[in-house]
Amino acid sequence: MKTETTVHGLAASLQTARSTKKLIGFVPTMGNLHEGHLSLVREAKKICDVVVVSIFVNPTQFGPNEDFENYPRSWEQDSQLLVDVGCDIIFAPPVEQIYTTQPVITRIQVTEITEILCGLSRPGHFDGVALIVTKLFNIVQPHYAFFGQKDFQQVAVVKQLVQDLNLSVEIIASATIRAEDGLALSSRNGYLNDQERAIAPTIYQSLRQAEQALHTGTILTEVLEGIRISLLEAGFSVDYVEAFTPHLKPVQSTDTEVVLFVAAKLGTTRLIDNLHVKLMTA
Amino acid sequence: MKTETTVHGLAASLQTARSTKKLIGFVPTMGNLHEGHLSLVREAKKICDVVVVSIFVNPTQFGPNEDFENYPRSWEQDSQLLVDVGCDIIFAPPVEQIYTTQPVITRIQVTEITEILCGLSRPGHFDGVALIVTKLFNIVQPHYAFFGQKDFQQVAVVKQLVQDLNLSVEIIASATIRAEDGLALSSRNGYLNDQERAIAPTIYQSLRQAEQALHTGTILTEVLEGIRISLLEAGFSVDYVEAFTPHLKPVQSTDTEVVLFVAAKLGTTRLIDNLHVKLMTA
Repeated sequence: MKTETTVHGLAASLQTARSTKKLIGFVPTMGNLHEGHLSLVREAKKICDVVVVSIFVNPTQFGPNEDFENYPRSWEQDSQLLVDVGCDIIFAPPVEQIYTTQPVITRIQVTEITEILCGLSRPGHFDGVALIVTKLFNIVQPHYAFFGQKDFQQVAVVKQLVQDLNLSVEIIASATIRAEDGLALSSRNGYLNDQERAIAPTIYQSLRQAEQALHTGTILTEVLEGIRISLLEAGFSVDYVEAFTPHLKPVQSTDTEVVLFVAAKLGTTRLIDNLHVKLMTA
Repeated sequence: MKTETTVHGLAASLQTARSTKKLIGFVPTMGNLHEGHLSLVREAKKICDVVVVSIFVNPTQFGPNEDFENYPRSWEQDSQLLVDVGCDIIFAPPVEQIYTTQPVITRIQVTEITEILCGLSRPGHFDGVALIVTKLFNIVQPHYAFFGQKDFQQVAVVKQLVQDLNLSVEIIASATIRAEDGLALSSRNGYLNDQERAIAPTIYQSLRQAEQALHTGTILTEVLEGIRISLLEAGFSVDYVEAFTPHLKPVQSTDTEVVLFVAAKLGTTRLIDNLHVKLMTA
């Protein structure tokens, strides 16, 4: 496994692969890798010849009061995990390799689908995501890029970006990887103390109960309220509990699938999760 | 010469060139070609193996009260000119090939350098330019792309975009091509009636006089005022007469080069021009 820290170095490392038409797979990460990331690398290994994993804590996707400075960095451990899982190249650039001019004067905004959910709670977040993803895609020029469905809205933004900017990469979204108790894996889980960690699975449990309720005919608004109450009772402060279609449109009475979305805080730690539910049709 | 009207068709046409590592040159145009465009194609022919010219009147770079509907289309003539000049592929897509979803929900904004000059007079124009240029670059994937310095601010926006989005294309900017009387060639010159066409060269004449005045020590503000007066006396309505550094920063007393910019209307026809002036240093 090679590690590259510069754009030119990465290009050089990929040159042979590119000229011999190897399929290049790309897993963008902010490091602090967990089984969710590793499952994406395994997925990439299945269909690609060369797998690049980027580790880059992207400043532009953090708000001014968010956890950029404290976001967990764990280079030694990440590096070992990536060797073990068969990653070919780690791309771990310093900030100034990616943002050569400060301040960054180009913005990319995917509108509409970012004006809900985390787009409302984290102003500018998806602009930062759109910019870094576009940059990294142009730097790595992969055939496939892999994202986790835990960040459902992010996947939607990235797919929209690929379509709207004619980026020549195919986006593969993989199922959320969960702890045994159902908690969606996330680097931010590391912020939780023992007590919070014990409460955290309530998010997924309440989503699954909601699915059951929808299947037994409870109306959507009542189901969402049920999730909210479960979370509040467990000690969360709730950011949002909402439902949209899989294309992030408002749910209509004729829809046969919905995605339930939750963002909630335990102490200062913000957790998100979602569940894609097929509705029973009459 | 081939003509392609779909993204897939173009990709297929370029496949051999790409896999045999031919250098691909790209000249994006809105058609209604003149010698300025053709000079870019000739430039491209010099350093590239395959030259693609796009003809696409991009709706997103026109304001609601601008001339999108009336923008001159001249397919037969353009096509013949491109054969003559040795263009290899014309890419002439219909709007729905480029904008597959309506409305377009992704925006690209190059800030700062678009907050002056034509960016002020034509709100949203450079967002439209940034989006279409990014899309076309991703569709054509050229090694080199060619632009005319007549659209100085556009060239700056495109270069910024390439840097900020890590697009792998090199931008070549060529000198403005002018009529014998100095008028910068532009598709919009076709809107001028005979009387207006006779007055139009005043723009370039006043820029050259301004250069002389700067060389003989006249201060910049006075020189700009001189241009404005010449234009008003000739019958223009003046949009702007300004100077910036070649990097589109405000001019400082220590600068040794400035670019003089003019936008002015004759009737409903808006003309722009610019002149890069090296200042005499003491």
